[in-house]
Amino acid sequence: MSESLFHTTTPIRFQDCDSAGIVYYPNFLHKVEAAIEDWMSSALGESYRDWIFAERRGMPRVKVVCDFRKPCRMGDRLTLTLYLRKLGRTSMEVEAVGRVAGEERLRIALVLVAVSLESHKAVPFSEAFRARLERYLRLSKEEA
Amino acid sequence: MSESLFHTTTPIRFQDCDSAGIVYYPNFLHKVEAAIEDWMSSALGESYRDWIFAERRGMPRVKVVCDFRKPCRMGDRLTLTLYLRKLGRTSMEVEAVGRVAGEERLRIALVLVAVSLESHKAVPFSEAFRARLERYLRLSKEEA
Amino acid sequence: MSESLFHTTTPIRFQDCDSAGIVYYPNFLHKVEAAIEDWMSSALGESYRDWIFAERRGMPRVKVVCDFRKPCRMGDRLTLTLYLRKLGRTSMEVEAVGRVAGEERLRIALVLVAVSLESHKAVPFSEAFRARLERYLRLSKEEA
Amino acid sequence: MSESLFHTTTPIRFQDCDSAGIVYYPNFLHKVEAAIEDWMSSALGESYRDWIFAERRGMPRVKVVCDFRKPCRMGDRLTLTLYLRKLGRTSMEVEAVGRVAGEERLRIALVLVAVSLESHKAVPFSEAFRARLERYLRLSKEEA
Repeated sequence: MSESLFHTTTPIRFQDCDSAGIVYYPNFLHKVEAAIEDWMSSALGESYRDWIFAERRGMPRVKVVCDFRKPCRMGDRLTLTLYLRKLGRTSMEVEAVGRVAGEERLRIALVLVAVSLESHKAVPFSEAFRARLERYLRLSKEEA
Repeated sequence: MSESLFHTTTPIRFQDCDSAGIVYYPNFLHKVEAAIEDWMSSALGESYRDWIFAERRGMPRVKVVCDFRKPCRMGDRLTLTLYLRKLGRTSMEVEAVGRVAGEERLRIALVLVAVSLESHKAVPFSEAFRARLERYLRLSKEEA
Repeated sequence: MSESLFHTTTPIRFQDCDSAGIVYYPNFLHKVEAAIEDWMSSALGESYRDWIFAERRGMPRVKVVCDFRKPCRMGDRLTLTLYLRKLGRTSMEVEAVGRVAGEERLRIALVLVAVSLESHKAVPFSEAFRARLERYLRLSKEEA
Repeated sequence: MSESLFHTTTPIRFQDCDSAGIVYYPNFLHKVEAAIEDWMSSALGESYRDWIFAERRGMPRVKVVCDFRKPCRMGDRLTLTLYLRKLGRTSMEVEAVGRVAGEERLRIALVLVAVSLESHKAVPFSEAFRARLERYLRLSKEEA
């Protein structure tokens, strides 16, 4: 795991935009979800694919709070940075901050809960995953 | 405008669901947005199409808060009921409550701001629209 | 099963349209897929949900041919009519014809193959399902 | 313009997949459309954003033919290569071939027509754009 916050840059495309010429906001969520998937797989060393298909676990989002501060338009390059805001035994809160050329455009905070796909009950994070999340939590506080 | 809260029932489809067998949550937002569009057009007598293409106004969502209490699965019939929670001069807060067979599954609250697509500035609601919204605000309080 | 072709009418919404003010075409596919799901469940008496989750079968689309003859815009009411064009032992070809106020706007033809989700091999349609499909095939030819 | 075919690699994500664990096929179209946008902007030196918003032109897809030969699953890395198959005065046919680890999974061919967003009539490609497209057409034939 690298010692910097996870960030990824994605272009705003024609397909993301509505008839008012700005991003149709649910499309931001696909981008944030892609970032979380990559963060888990690359930065945290936890394959989201194995998590679901091998371990039969899911991670439903139980709360999602979106602040859209300024719109994004086709051609903008949106950089999403992920912060871990809270860490529980079976849940965590991740916040994605979206910026275009350094200017903040949006914040999306998500509460994720680890569950068994068999029992549908919450399950604790593994020791190894938890240790990596704790480091990322500290990093998030330092760079907040 | 009818004297009851706007509600609409929509089936949860194969295309709404993910590999864990439950709704991929951004798909709920398409359903809530469809409900808001129909509410404006039918219950409020304000054509959302004219709003955008004739009057050149938009209504960006500046805040969206989602509480996903229980998952929805393919074949569920989701009833969305719309409540008007707050009404300002240029903005309003709408809350969609989603239930399956009477059981609450989700709440999504949205803050909408009326803007000019030319100046990108907030613009007040028209008198007629505002009057209808005020009635709906009262109705929402009574039936909360 | 009723003795008429399956059709369904759906509004073209803000969320379906792109920055050129017309439907972003992959959104037509969601509408066609919704129509096929409803056709199977209501007109054919075959629950698509049971098909997948109880019988562990899938029906991947192996070929999809779209002809977009005239664009659709927000506020249009699109009527999709489904025709069964071909019927094989494990596959079928369905064509959706989309009209607005009687004017043809699009045709989307899809080849669907029934497969086992366990073995990933093609599996024949059941006798009962096949009998209903044969009737729909005849009906489609009569009303073509 | 570089002297090789445009190709781009994109991961298959959780959000792309359905309850059968494979890509819900309309999601392939978003990926192909993203590739076409990048091809136009980078390889062809034609900003798709300017095309639409400055020149007020659109490029509706009038025909889209999809062959899904083998399914894709979460974690697959899909490489899309773009071929220009035909070039007319106001239209062109682009084919995207999708491969995972060299194995062909899908082909999607699209006919694009340049139109004025004002008159809704077909408009010829500019000389400069056409010259670049002709080179790409030759390159596509050589590497077919």
